[in-house]
Amino acid sequence: MSKGSINTEYDMPEGFNISVIEAAIKKPGRTDVALIYSTVPAAVAAVFTKNAVKAAPVLLDIKRILNGSARAIVANSGNANACTGEQGMKDAALMASTVAAVLDIDEADVLVCSTGVIGAPMPMDRLWPKLKECAQNVGSATLMDAAMAIMTTDSFPKIASRRIKLGSKTCTIAAVAKGAGMICPDMATMLCFILTDAAVAPKVLKTALKNSVEKSFNRITVDGDTSTNDTVILLANGMAGNKTIDGQAKDFFKTFEKALDEITLELARMCVRDGEGATKIFTVLVKGATTPVHALKAARTVANSPLVKTAIYGRDANWGRIMAALGRSAIPFDPYKVDIFFDGVMVVENGLAAGNEADAEKILSNNDEVTVTVDLKSGEAAAEIISCDLTEEYIRINSKYRT
Amino acid sequence: MSKGSINTEYDMPEGFNISVIEAAIKKPGRTDVALIYSTVPAAVAAVFTKNAVKAAPVLLDIKRILNGSARAIVANSGNANACTGEQGMKDAALMASTVAAVLDIDEADVLVCSTGVIGAPMPMDRLWPKLKECAQNVGSATLMDAAMAIMTTDSFPKIASRRIKLGSKTCTIAAVAKGAGMICPDMATMLCFILTDAAVAPKVLKTALKNSVEKSFNRITVDGDTSTNDTVILLANGMAGNKTIDGQAKDFFKTFEKALDEITLELARMCVRDGEGATKIFTVLVKGATTPVHALKAARTVANSPLVKTAIYGRDANWGRIMAALGRSAIPFDPYKVDIFFDGVMVVENGLAAGNEADAEKILSNNDEVTVTVDLKSGEAAAEIISCDLTEEYIRINSKYRT
Repeated sequence: MSKGSINTEYDMPEGFNISVIEAAIKKPGRTDVALIYSTVPAAVAAVFTKNAVKAAPVLLDIKRILNGSARAIVANSGNANACTGEQGMKDAALMASTVAAVLDIDEADVLVCSTGVIGAPMPMDRLWPKLKECAQNVGSATLMDAAMAIMTTDSFPKIASRRIKLGSKTCTIAAVAKGAGMICPDMATMLCFILTDAAVAPKVLKTALKNSVEKSFNRITVDGDTSTNDTVILLANGMAGNKTIDGQAKDFFKTFEKALDEITLELARMCVRDGEGATKIFTVLVKGATTPVHALKAARTVANSPLVKTAIYGRDANWGRIMAALGRSAIPFDPYKVDIFFDGVMVVENGLAAGNEADAEKILSNNDEVTVTVDLKSGEAAAEIISCDLTEEYIRINSKYRT
Repeated sequence: MSKGSINTEYDMPEGFNISVIEAAIKKPGRTDVALIYSTVPAAVAAVFTKNAVKAAPVLLDIKRILNGSARAIVANSGNANACTGEQGMKDAALMASTVAAVLDIDEADVLVCSTGVIGAPMPMDRLWPKLKECAQNVGSATLMDAAMAIMTTDSFPKIASRRIKLGSKTCTIAAVAKGAGMICPDMATMLCFILTDAAVAPKVLKTALKNSVEKSFNRITVDGDTSTNDTVILLANGMAGNKTIDGQAKDFFKTFEKALDEITLELARMCVRDGEGATKIFTVLVKGATTPVHALKAARTVANSPLVKTAIYGRDANWGRIMAALGRSAIPFDPYKVDIFFDGVMVVENGLAAGNEADAEKILSNNDEVTVTVDLKSGEAAAEIISCDLTEEYIRINSKYRT
């Protein structure tokens, strides 16, 4: 699969300064630290992994976002600072206080993110002097540089932006993400930093982010199947000068929410497209379910089935595996009511072969993206999960990640 | 991995006649129909897939075992007769009635099993005359021949037997199984036929089989994640002449149960060892859990994690992935109490690196079988799941199974 066109042009919100540096956490020649600094205090919202094993920076950030305000994010790739105990907590705090001292801000206003290998101590001897240097050079790098500094197994940087009009003011939202392992439940960390110069009240920001993540990043992976480090942070510094968005009912909120949703979905799709070893994206749309929960459960089970994923990789319209996955998804349905389509081609009608497999296989052979529609014909609810195929390359990446 | 020594010697219970035939359902040169016939009526017990999408032969057998008695099993490989609607039900019934007519027994006493591709109609034009021929030749083949006739992606036939003394009588239990896809939740069908000449009351037989499957086949795959065709059948024809085992408390029952458990576990282990593309078996033992349900849930989550499986394949003692899998298993535990061992080598102590990864990697490099022990130190409960690694070969097999 072509990885699609990579965004290289993007709009940048006012008042955010960036720097990146190489601290030799990853292999030589790759930046591995990014610093994002808002020149004024920003409203903050964040969503974290639900995994019971939470990395040190996640535990730190959970507390730090409670007051609804932040100034900076310092992130490293190459080491997750997870399962590192008290030392890990100290290291995460030190990462924040080091950049805070240089930037002359409160260390409690600095959020920390890490991604990489679990269980190894942070190489603070190498990292610490580089953090100082990074903070001293803030403003010297672009958001694209930051997107590259947080990559691990990602094959391309992930960036997206939108411009919106709020009354007479033009506001910008820009975001970077990393994550190339949404292919299976317990994959590599997903990080996403969203920056905007819109003025948004913390409470509203929180609602908008939670809803947006639910419709994007949470639709490309299995519920509750998260890494130790997954983090999405949204900073809104108000530099655009719009009237602060402080209620959900307002038009401004709708405009902001729409742009935010577009950005998170765009980045989420990039993560799937960059799925480790993936050659093809497929969207599983389950409709006609009795409840939205059932629709989502069925869509997730099909989208995560290794047998479905390998069939898609083999350009094989093997709908029997889809039926078997539905059958074990523990939702109520009648197998002999099910219709299944690959894009527009019906392969199953009322639970039986519809005889168009050759046409479906043409679609699988020719298209980089395919929608598998399952109509349960038992109700009105629908849900969609975006997934990718499972290939030898996935095995290669994950059996050799640390070596 | 060497697939281990393949059993070629086994003891055969009295009063079972076998035949096999090539009906061109699989590729030429491979037998694909097996018939097992008890010369006298046998007590029967069976366990079937919990998948909501059940193949036609499963739906047929569920009714037929209700009276506790059966005479024959006719099984084919190459086509699962699943998602085949009314025609599939007719075909399954016709398979039974065809052999029943030749054997001059009641067709309701014939059980049917199928395994292979889902959703394709049974090739009854080819199969029907061959079924007659197969029934006419009953007694001409061995149980090993039957083990080979039911293979699909299996790389070796799976057979096991035990001799037991029940009072003055010697009884024999012998069994065949197929299944090489226990590597992931929604894998290929597992079939197992267990034959004994012991006399056992149907009710007792049912209890013994249910318990035995729970401790063997259900410990190599995820709860409820079953194929459309999974079936385990146990026939006890009483030809050994022992006093009928009719109560669980009896010594005879214990002796019988022990042998049955050994056979099912031996066959279950063979299925994992033959796991599609597997190079290594690993057993995940979770102990110190607060309840047996939590222990099992944690063991299953670790044993099924694609990241753990690929790390094991890469001979990488990547315990961070084990911690992350525990973290998403939704059981109560304290990450900083966890100890993790690869065989005898401690790699994690109280949630932190114990520094013996090099030793653990030697174990992973040198041993075909490894036990990953996770001690949660939160309670007294333990559970074990047997799994295998995830390799490029698994992808190759499953992306090309139908082509």
